[in-house]
Amino acid sequence: MNQFEHYLRAQTQLTDDDILRVRSCATSLTVRKRQPVLCAGDVCRHKLFVLTGLLRVYRVGQDGTESVMRFSAENQWAIDHESYTTETPSHCYIEALEDTTLLLWTKETMNELFAAMPAFRAFSDRLKDESHNKSLQRIFSNISHSAEEKYNAFVAENPTVFRRVPLHMVASYLGVTRETLSRIRQKHHQLR
Amino acid sequence: MNQFEHYLRAQTQLTDDDILRVRSCATSLTVRKRQPVLCAGDVCRHKLFVLTGLLRVYRVGQDGTESVMRFSAENQWAIDHESYTTETPSHCYIEALEDTTLLLWTKETMNELFAAMPAFRAFSDRLKDESHNKSLQRIFSNISHSAEEKYNAFVAENPTVFRRVPLHMVASYLGVTRETLSRIRQKHHQLR
Repeated sequence: MNQFEHYLRAQTQLTDDDILRVRSCATSLTVRKRQPVLCAGDVCRHKLFVLTGLLRVYRVGQDGTESVMRFSAENQWAIDHESYTTETPSHCYIEALEDTTLLLWTKETMNELFAAMPAFRAFSDRLKDESHNKSLQRIFSNISHSAEEKYNAFVAENPTVFRRVPLHMVASYLGVTRETLSRIRQKHHQLR
Repeated sequence: MNQFEHYLRAQTQLTDDDILRVRSCATSLTVRKRQPVLCAGDVCRHKLFVLTGLLRVYRVGQDGTESVMRFSAENQWAIDHESYTTETPSHCYIEALEDTTLLLWTKETMNELFAAMPAFRAFSDRLKDESHNKSLQRIFSNISHSAEEKYNAFVAENPTVFRRVPLHMVASYLGVTRETLSRIRQKHHQLR
């Protein structure tokens, strides 16, 4: 069994045949560091699963400022949820922060798999709920936590991703300035 | 037809019989202004639909600060998504900001209706996607927009709710201080 098959077996009650069927419907893609997987203006037509490497989903504001919406590392999914669900042009870019290998399914393929395999659909629904719950937790953090609390929570929840992304992208993800983040990190180093 | 039946007819392709079936499975509830509908620590076991009035969903931080997660007015739904989906104790309170009339469905009832009516399930899935897309848009706004941009967007998107809630709750929803919000509003009044 390969990595994705192990992942599905650990996460679901699908039979080996079902797991093979899901895997066989995927397309493989390898992207180099800094290469885009989705550009703003295009419709996000695929669900992406990261086998190795790291993606970031980000938006660019009218003043050119980049805002990181999420990071997706090994065994994590990535889409632009709005573009994928509404089938309208994306506001997001998805790019590789490292050389990355991916599996891709089109929305049509996914829907066929859901119709054929209720247990796979239930798994997808659970992932969507978890993803939405994380978004709501992030909103709560955004509107109520200090910059330092947000930073500490990010490091605790993303210990591996944290070490692999430049500091200014962490600042962008948290919605704090680089200067504030540098001050917080300096304080942490002094306390050690 | 009553209000909820009109709402479902406008939003879905359900037959009149199906609409009546959904409506007949609901429980009615009337709550007075300031009365709680859900308390932190309880499991959110119902989906709520507001017929008249106004609800707010909010969390209370360790220092006692309230953070408004959402407002739900007429023809809008309210749940604590995390507690409802995971069936774990809620971090949220839901309270009435005005005298409010509601319809309630338990999760078991909703799941039975979804199983019996795929079109009702598809409608619920669409609402969930829209709700998640709004959450993602709010995260982008939180991490990238100025307090003034956030305020202007809130007023534009919630013209009726905006006039019905105290200013400190709008500040809490936006994650800005009351003082900042007062300054922005003063500036707007001067410009008129």
